Amino acid sequence: MLSNLTVVEQYASRAVKVQSKIGIIAGSGLLPLRLIDSCRESSKPYFIILLEGEAKPSDYYGEDFSLIPIGSLGKTINALKKSNCTEVVMAGPVKRPSLSKLKLDLRAIKLLARFARSKNQGDDALLRILVKELELEGFKVIGADEILGKGSLAKVGVMGKHAPNQVALDNISLGIEVAQTLGSLDIGQSVIIQENVVIGVEAAEGTDSLIQRCRKLLKEGSPGVLVKVKKPNQDPRADLPTIGVNTVKISFESGLSGIAVVANSTLIIDYDSVINEANSLGLFIYGQTQ
Amino acid sequence: MLSNLTVVEQYASRAVKVQSKIGIIAGSGLLPLRLIDSCRESSKPYFIILLEGEAKPSDYYGEDFSLIPIGSLGKTINALKKSNCTEVVMAGPVKRPSLSKLKLDLRAIKLLARFARSKNQGDDALLRILVKELELEGFKVIGADEILGKGSLAKVGVMGKHAPNQVALDNISLGIEVAQTLGSLDIGQSVIIQENVVIGVEAAEGTDSLIQRCRKLLKEGSPGVLVKVKKPNQDPRADLPTIGVNTVKISFESGLSGIAVVANSTLIIDYDSVINEANSLGLFIYGQTQ
Repeated sequence: MLSNLTVVEQYASRAVKVQSKIGIIAGSGLLPLRLIDSCRESSKPYFIILLEGEAKPSDYYGEDFSLIPIGSLGKTINALKKSNCTEVVMAGPVKRPSLSKLKLDLRAIKLLARFARSKNQGDDALLRILVKELELEGFKVIGADEILGKGSLAKVGVMGKHAPNQVALDNISLGIEVAQTLGSLDIGQSVIIQENVVIGVEAAEGTDSLIQRCRKLLKEGSPGVLVKVKKPNQDPRADLPTIGVNTVKISFESGLSGIAVVANSTLIIDYDSVINEANSLGLFIYGQTQ
Repeated sequence: MLSNLTVVEQYASRAVKVQSKIGIIAGSGLLPLRLIDSCRESSKPYFIILLEGEAKPSDYYGEDFSLIPIGSLGKTINALKKSNCTEVVMAGPVKRPSLSKLKLDLRAIKLLARFARSKNQGDDALLRILVKELELEGFKVIGADEILGKGSLAKVGVMGKHAPNQVALDNISLGIEVAQTLGSLDIGQSVIIQENVVIGVEAAEGTDSLIQRCRKLLKEGSPGVLVKVKKPNQDPRADLPTIGVNTVKISFESGLSGIAVVANSTLIIDYDSVINEANSLGLFIYGQTQ
């Protein structure tokens, strides 16, 4: 029994040396699932932490995972160490919960105390502090795009078979300017523009909700566009702007003519499916250079 | 018959010399109605134009008015002139309609052509061009506060019996900064802040809708605040930020602890009722100096 354990430990130790194990800290949505697919395809060892209330355990059927509350940072770090992770990736949107509802462990309280002393208290700032904390623990924090590969990033210009017309290009140009200003204030990543008017601006509600609520605000006439950018101070490893098939579907349902994102800085989950969906619905997907 | 008309014309001409008549261009909401009350109280002659689709004719029962489509600028100017108006006040929110739905007259087309050549195409820019156009026609454009009196403007500091606590003051401070940046981009006037996080940002949906949609986004814990400011480039005669009893009611329903506005630059419709409502619901109304 003892010798068996020793063999396992030796094997585990050798495996770590041979190939680093990656801890996937999973929020909501499809991105963490795609990361797992990629790890499997490349035979990269991984360990899954599902953030309670964000990732749906039923989506991870057949996988081993730890379900950990968002406020339990110490527990998360211990779990990553215990499973011999050397790398960490954070993936999928996480709604910042109510402070009074969070079950904070000591480690999380320390982090939040540092955060409370910082001037900027937007999501970027919180994520940057979290990345730093993980690095101090010796983990290499990597971006989802490093796992999914360059093919998952938005390309420059027209990505499908539909192109934005001049009216849409003007909307995009205004949208990029407005979204970057909002981003520099760490407010949100997305705006909807129609006929050079800012129809809606994302803050805590998320991109999908923005698109849905703008359905009623958009006017007849030349259709609006969704513009999503990376915040200027955003750590690309923590919260890269992301679109997926659902973004295309609800943009279509809200009457938008297309989606503009920043080329090489936006993750497109299920790239081929997104472009196919946009093609069949008549929407453009456009990568703006910055 | 002819002599009667002459007497009327002479009388009208004398009346104009004695006291200028004011044209009230009415959008939606209570503000135009309060202006009419004020004019009546001070026996100031007035002439009412209701913007079709914005002002409710049934609210103006017993008054004479012209119902004019928003796109009929020439018709509006002619009506103001024909009724011997020398002053004009624009009051009440107006949603910018779809270009394709607007029945534009020649005058409006000329104005929109000038607007289309301007770089900034937000609401401020449109209203500034409109004010200039009315001035070129010889009208004196005045702000609603000039009619309602200084008592209708937000005062400095705590206006009712409830005061913001330090957490709320921090939220207000961030809110003013964010709202002014949004305003400088001519996006919107209002933001909702909770625990130093920007929960929602107003664009085309209007302040009431912002407050209502944030109900779902606000977290438990220390409550959020509504912050509403004047846009830096905003002509105060065209679109002064406004709050009223309904703003207080829906802020309460959404769980906000209070409302902060810019002192001396915000119209409070039915001042005493607003303060009484806030007092009885436990909300603060706070006037920030700029």
